[in-house]
Amino acid sequence: MKTFNYTKLVAATAIIASTFSLPSIAADKVYRLKMAETWAANFPIFGDAPRNMARMAEAMSNGRLKITIDSSNKHKAALGIFDLVRSGQYDMGHSASYYWKGKVPNTLYFTTMPFGMTTPEQYGWFYHGGGMELMEKVYQPFGLLSFPGGNTGNQMGGWFQKEINSLADLKGLKMRIPGFAGEVLAKLGAKPTNIASGELYTALERRTIDALEWVGPSLDLRMGFHKIAPYYYTGWHEPSTELQFLVNERVWKKLPEDLREILRVSMKLASYDMYIQSYHESAKNWDTMKSEYPNVEVRTFPKEVLGAMREANQQLLNEKAVADPLAKEILDSQASYLEKVRVWTNISDRAYLDSLDVKLQ
Amino acid sequence: MKTFNYTKLVAATAIIASTFSLPSIAADKVYRLKMAETWAANFPIFGDAPRNMARMAEAMSNGRLKITIDSSNKHKAALGIFDLVRSGQYDMGHSASYYWKGKVPNTLYFTTMPFGMTTPEQYGWFYHGGGMELMEKVYQPFGLLSFPGGNTGNQMGGWFQKEINSLADLKGLKMRIPGFAGEVLAKLGAKPTNIASGELYTALERRTIDALEWVGPSLDLRMGFHKIAPYYYTGWHEPSTELQFLVNERVWKKLPEDLREILRVSMKLASYDMYIQSYHESAKNWDTMKSEYPNVEVRTFPKEVLGAMREANQQLLNEKAVADPLAKEILDSQASYLEKVRVWTNISDRAYLDSLDVKLQ
Repeated sequence: MKTFNYTKLVAATAIIASTFSLPSIAADKVYRLKMAETWAANFPIFGDAPRNMARMAEAMSNGRLKITIDSSNKHKAALGIFDLVRSGQYDMGHSASYYWKGKVPNTLYFTTMPFGMTTPEQYGWFYHGGGMELMEKVYQPFGLLSFPGGNTGNQMGGWFQKEINSLADLKGLKMRIPGFAGEVLAKLGAKPTNIASGELYTALERRTIDALEWVGPSLDLRMGFHKIAPYYYTGWHEPSTELQFLVNERVWKKLPEDLREILRVSMKLASYDMYIQSYHESAKNWDTMKSEYPNVEVRTFPKEVLGAMREANQQLLNEKAVADPLAKEILDSQASYLEKVRVWTNISDRAYLDSLDVKLQ
Repeated sequence: MKTFNYTKLVAATAIIASTFSLPSIAADKVYRLKMAETWAANFPIFGDAPRNMARMAEAMSNGRLKITIDSSNKHKAALGIFDLVRSGQYDMGHSASYYWKGKVPNTLYFTTMPFGMTTPEQYGWFYHGGGMELMEKVYQPFGLLSFPGGNTGNQMGGWFQKEINSLADLKGLKMRIPGFAGEVLAKLGAKPTNIASGELYTALERRTIDALEWVGPSLDLRMGFHKIAPYYYTGWHEPSTELQFLVNERVWKKLPEDLREILRVSMKLASYDMYIQSYHESAKNWDTMKSEYPNVEVRTFPKEVLGAMREANQQLLNEKAVADPLAKEILDSQASYLEKVRVWTNISDRAYLDSLDVKLQ
């Protein structure tokens, strides 16, 4: 496998662009890229990010870069985007890195981690704390480039039919919570299950499951869970869920320098934009939920439960670090970045929000 | 004055770009724009944002859009950017909207407001809550387009030689705190002063002033205030300081559609990027300050003081709303957006951060 350094290529783009003052590359060739997304057609917010990206890329290139997007209804491989792009069946993908943990375990760490970084903290890690370089190390052996693809912000802990007052309440709790967070809860005696999204409402209503997590108000409103579950728990397991753009390395290398920069910039801006869109939609939709169903109550898990979840999480991560040096390198990088950046979060935004609990005189 | 709608122009860009598949505009013409920035040469972070923007615009346009930046050392009008761009002496500017409040009072509201929105909240307001349209309403009569220009994140309340334990401690307090926040403190008996940045260190060291605010660790470290003042207060007056790109409307209209989109995207991405850069630099620099001067202590103003500041702030804003219908429209828009979005902040990021005050078992 050839080595590949995306950071250097970006720098080269800047140098080349400043050396030639006129277009040096055939300006009339149209590059048509095909992208596969994990999401079904018309899925809001998650589906808006790649479309926002493609629209910007086409407009900035004056039509020289055209990206068409196939939803999962078309390609029938919602959780197969990694292979679709690796094989070259698609040039690009839009998905989430943690979906590939069964195939490449170290992809787990580039979406969000339980008890991990918030969104500005995690972007700080990606762009200034070594995160991009570590993600490159994980994806490069597969001929793939991975970029941040849009953030949901802090995800809620989920909808519960009954309150969780102690660790005993977790024992046997049937909860739809897939992935690594499900493993954490399983260690505490819960029964994590996965259920197709179309069946979630009925399963929660008929108490086939006791609880479920989805995203947050931005996407939960349309699912209607607030109509059938009284408790909405605050988040712990996905504090900053970052989606992912995947690009086939051969495709990337074939693009002229200016279009490569257009693609890089469009992906990066679409990602930040999705974070702000998610923030806005969550604020708006939570207001709607509370207006329609004023009895819905927000709860935070008791300290005993959070402490046990956190310890279970740390044990699982320690096992991964022991088993794989690259996992250890990534986890150490995240932990040491988090340690410093959280101090800043606490004395800036958090202190500010806390200090506002004063009434006007 | 001709009416001008930037939102429609952006939409038109997308339509035109998708109608023609090949470049329809003379692709060999190089557009050279001159930008004046408020900052002195080599000013970190604030000065990085316009350079990051110009670099992206040049690379994406393959050299067809070249933006040169003059610092205040050159143009000698640090706080005259509004006029430099309005008159056409410069095509663009990089500054902050609240610097123009003496000239156009309603420009005050597009940087940050005491006790106002945090950074993701404020970006939500700009891009989804009507903020961009209101900013257009304020700047359009002057033939100017204004765009977000990079965010510092939450600014600290400043460096103090003595603790503030009550409202009485504010009486006669000599503090370098310019602008609207200074007006708020003046209502409570403090003596806000302005002092040239090069003289701040000596003034604080020799107790010519009792306190000062600058930015936050990102930019305070190089000023050295942590070496001479024991207390660093958490923020209240600038929770989300957004800088500003100004563009002369005639220049904007002369650009081909693709370069206009390249400019819009570059400005928007450089702004988000500066927010993340500031976040990172603050975390890193605060860690350095605490390592070098472990006795520096973080303080939050007592509730009595914060309550009085908040009331003074609200009184000043009420006066502005009564005096000017557009001021009222902007302030109402911000207040109603803040009311909804803060509920979301409180049950998402804030609840998450608060819930982490648990020790591992």
